[in-house]
Formats: sequence, structure tokens, C-alpha cells
Amino acid sequence: MTETLHPVYLDCDTGIDDALALGHLLASPRADLVGVGTVHGNIDAAGAAENTLRLLALAGRQDVPVAVGAGTPLAGGFSGGAVAVHGADGIGGVRASLPDAVASPGPEDTGDAVDLLIRLSHEYAGELQILAIGPLTNLAHALVRDPTLVDRIAGVTVMGGAALVPGNARPAAEANIWHDPEAAQATVAASWPVTLVPLDTTMEHTLDETYRRRLAEAASPYARACGEMLDVYLNFYETVVLGRRAAALHDPLAAAIMLGEVALLDAPRVHVEVDCTDGPSRGSTVCDLRSQRKAPGDVPGATVRVVLETAPGYVDLLTELLESL
Amino acid sequence: MTETLHPVYLDCDTGIDDALALGHLLASPRADLVGVGTVHGNIDAAGAAENTLRLLALAGRQDVPVAVGAGTPLAGGFSGGAVAVHGADGIGGVRASLPDAVASPGPEDTGDAVDLLIRLSHEYAGELQILAIGPLTNLAHALVRDPTLVDRIAGVTVMGGAALVPGNARPAAEANIWHDPEAAQATVAASWPVTLVPLDTTMEHTLDETYRRRLAEAASPYARACGEMLDVYLNFYETVVLGRRAAALHDPLAAAIMLGEVALLDAPRVHVEVDCTDGPSRGSTVCDLRSQRKAPGDVPGATVRVVLETAPGYVDLLTELLESL
Repeated sequence: MTETLHPVYLDCDTGIDDALALGHLLASPRADLVGVGTVHGNIDAAGAAENTLRLLALAGRQDVPVAVGAGTPLAGGFSGGAVAVHGADGIGGVRASLPDAVASPGPEDTGDAVDLLIRLSHEYAGELQILAIGPLTNLAHALVRDPTLVDRIAGVTVMGGAALVPGNARPAAEANIWHDPEAAQATVAASWPVTLVPLDTTMEHTLDETYRRRLAEAASPYARACGEMLDVYLNFYETVVLGRRAAALHDPLAAAIMLGEVALLDAPRVHVEVDCTDGPSRGSTVCDLRSQRKAPGDVPGATVRVVLETAPGYVDLLTELLESL
Repeated sequence: MTETLHPVYLDCDTGIDDALALGHLLASPRADLVGVGTVHGNIDAAGAAENTLRLLALAGRQDVPVAVGAGTPLAGGFSGGAVAVHGADGIGGVRASLPDAVASPGPEDTGDAVDLLIRLSHEYAGELQILAIGPLTNLAHALVRDPTLVDRIAGVTVMGGAALVPGNARPAAEANIWHDPEAAQATVAASWPVTLVPLDTTMEHTLDETYRRRLAEAASPYARACGEMLDVYLNFYETVVLGRRAAALHDPLAAAIMLGEVALLDAPRVHVEVDCTDGPSRGSTVCDLRSQRKAPGDVPGATVRVVLETAPGYVDLLTELLESL
């Protein structure tokens, strides 16, 4: 079987599960990672770039350009990062043990993330896939800087939101959207095809201690680094989120969905609006799923596909991909 | 088995499913219906009182006091009613065929619904159950008019809201809450025990054409009237909501839950805030269910029980109760 090779721009706030998603993209035969932009979120944007560059070095992929993007959301300042979830360095304390990033293409060489994205959209016009696994600030800036961008993008896959499940950052808001609702609204309102990968499905794909140990003991240095950093992530999920030693594969699942490597069981295109008020629903993804009661499936004119349910088993694919690096 | 007899104040916007709830309360051995207040919603408040008085006359229960309550929400004006759902008279066109309401205690005799509720709260202090199956405007007014009210109420059961399912009036908002979010927020924020019966569970309890016919052919005049008016309700559900001839038992299910006649399978006490912004989530019930992932059950300090799942089979109980009238 010949698989389509997708040129991918990754927008991320690296992040433990971002590191897993990066690994998935590097290992998958369906992905050609052509650039990475970083953004505030799990850590500051510069720290996310530092993490990304070191992880790319670990995988021997210093050829991938990395650019620092927005350090703050469209409204307000940097949240301070998710230290309790991802550790102070964003990747569970393993940064210092990773290869130095000096030899890699730094932000100075590539311009900021928005420039990189726009440049890549010309280079891979009509083919470029955007995978956004942090707050959507860079995408919102790019839409303003070049409104023709939407016409050159094949698709935008966003890890974010919560449709029919509780949020995580707030009762009704998932963290990536919560950290820049205005940017998220600009992203879902733009006339490009968006696939939203919300907590509804990401919380159903978990990685437990058995898989973590398997990664920690792998031959692949990238897999071993993931296994090590996942210790911090699983600690958080055990004590705060799930009460058991298993963590959700938010960001890497979005990578797999973008590449068509996980079957979608329920993923209608519906109208979506992000709550940008200052009320109790700020940052929630208001998905109009009322019609699904009568006629499940796509709503005419809607451009946002909301992935509500996917086939199980992704953790095995992810683990194998990371082991292959 | 000795069953507890609960004195009940019913607040309603009668309404086809309100008529079913009224019938449930009149027939149940656990309920002592001591007063009814009406409110804008499915129909105007005066029309709701007219419907209620006629239905009480049909059941031979002209002894139950009925008072007209708020005609408009706390903010804004009367919505115009839900003619497409309930018909122009609110009860599927059967009003004219019901007994005249002249002989019943009218609004003139009992004061408005808020006065009636406050009077009953003294008469049945510590025992009175409030069943609210319309917008919560009367309850909000009562809380302002007499802040000590909360101390004399045994419980408030509200049909309203949507926790982890789509809304009906709006993508994230259920109709009763949508029609007066500010009143709903006042109700859930007050220091009385509230049980919220949202679409999560009411949409799972439906009545189909077979049951409707059984009611339409019953010996009980009340059941027959319900069977007749349900024709309109099922038409709406078939064409707009479900695509099949079955309608949700929203209001009567709330009556059954209040009386302990339906088993609660998942109904944690959690923090709830009603969205009162003018954004896309206005009228949504923001239930903080994040903790349920780790530790299902009540959250310390929370006063609102959100009924997410109930045992099946309620339609049989309701049908039998209506047939017994």
C-alpha cells in the first residue's frame, strides 16, 4: 500500500505529550515534518523551542527548522506554564540530559513561527497540514498577517476543546483553548478545514505504567527520553486527574488522526464557536451537536470536524513508532 | 411499606409535559400537591394557569390553589412561548375540550405565585418540596422577597439544564434555563438543596406512539387528554428533535425523581454555575464534573445534585399513574 506523505507544520508548546506527538511525526511513514513553531502554553515559547530543538537533535533530525512564536495570548499575559503537569522544564526534568541545541537551526535563522508557517504554506501550497497542539495564538496571528493563508492549507488539526465531557483547565474549558480563546475562535471561524480533537476522545486513549516502562527500557534514545519524562506526567494524572497511573495521549492522538492512522468512529462536521466571554464558560468549545440526535453526521456548511469517538488501540501504534526512532 | 407523603409546590409553564408532571403528582401516593404557581415559558403565565386549572378540574382536584406568577424573565421580555412544541394553547389544542376553570380558585384568590410559595413554605415549614419545571423566575423573585425562604424548604427539584449532552433551545442551553438564566443562577446559588434534572437523563426517558395510544384509549379522562395532546408533542419530536415518534418525558421525570420513584444511577452533588453572559454559552449549566474522573460522587460543599443517569422504565410508571386518575 502506498501511503500519502503529508508535509506537516507542527505548532506546539513542548510539553510532555507534545514530545510524544513530535516523536510520532518523526517516526510515521505518513508524515514529512517540514517545520515547527512554538507557542506559550505548557511552558514559555522560547523554552518550548529549546525542548523541541533538543528532541530533534536526539532523533538526529537537526534539519527540521524550529521557530519561536507567540509568547502571550491575544488577550492577557503568559499563564506561567503547567509546571505541575509537565515539570519546570516542560519535559519532566529531562531537558538537561538531552543533546545540546546549539547546532540546530535556531529562531534567528527562520524568523518567527508565523513567518515560518507562511513560508511553508507557499512552499507546500495546497498540501501543507497544520498540526496545532498548543494554544492557537500563532495561527491567529498568521491569519491576520496573511489572509490568503487559508487557501494554501490542506487542513488544520487542533488538539483542543471539550464537546460533551468536562474540561480540564476549567469546568467547561480544555487547556489549549482556555489559554487563548480569542485565537481559537479565529482558527475555527477561518475558511480552512479544521479537525478538532477534543478531550472527548483524547481522554479515552491513555498510556499506563506498563507502556511507560517499555519506553523507558527501549533501545531508541528518543523512546527512553519519553519514558523518563512520562514519569512526571503519570504522577500528575495519578494524583490529580484519574486516580490511577495512566495519562491521556492528547497531542500524539491528534497527530495520528491528522495522518489518518486512527479510525474515526464519530466525527461530524458541525458549527463550533469558542466562548470568548469572561463568564464561567470562557474557553469552552460550543459545538452545536443538537442535530446529531435526529440525523448523525455532517451539518451542511459546517467546516469544523469534531472528533467525538475513535477506534481504540492507539497506544500500541505510538509505542511502536517511538521505539522505531 | 409506608411511603413518605411530600407536600409539593409545583412551579410550571403548562405545557404538554407539564400536564404529564401534574398528572404524576396528582396520582402518586407520595405527593400531596398543595399549590401551583405558573410562569412564562412554554406559554404565557396566565395561559399556563388556565391550562392548570382546567386540568385540575378534569382530575376533580379544584381544591388545589393555582396562582399566576412572573410573566417575563428577570432580564428581557416574554419569549412568545413554544408554539411549535406545545401548540398555541400550550397543551396541544385540547384546552377547549377540558372543563371550564371558572369554579376553581383563580389568581385573584391566592395572590401571585411568589406569595403562594412563601405562604406554603410557612404552612409546611421544613417539609415543602418545590418542583420547578419551567423557567425559574418565580423562585428567584421569592428568594429576593423573603431570603428566609431557603430555611423552610426541604428541597428544590428543577427540570432544566444540560451537563454533558447538547442543549435544546441553544447548542449548550436547555429551554427552561435559557428562558431565564439569571433566575436559574439565583436558584442554584441559594443555600437550599437543589436537584437538577437535566437533558442528560430526561432525553433517555421517552414515550412513543404505543404508549400515547394507550393513554388516548384509557378510561381515565385525564389520561385520555394527555394522550390527545401528546400527538402534537410527538409530531414535534419526530420532525425536529429525534426523527422518530417518541418524546422526552422531561417534566414528569423530574416529579418522579423528586418523589424518589426513579432510582438515581449517577447523580453527584457538584458545583454548578449558570452562564449569564451574552455569549454563545448563555443559559448553559456549567457543572464542574472534572473531579468525577478521579473520584465519582459528591463534592464537599456542593449543594446542587446533578442527575446524570437514572434507571430505565419510568414511562411505565407514568402511564400507570395517569391511567389511575
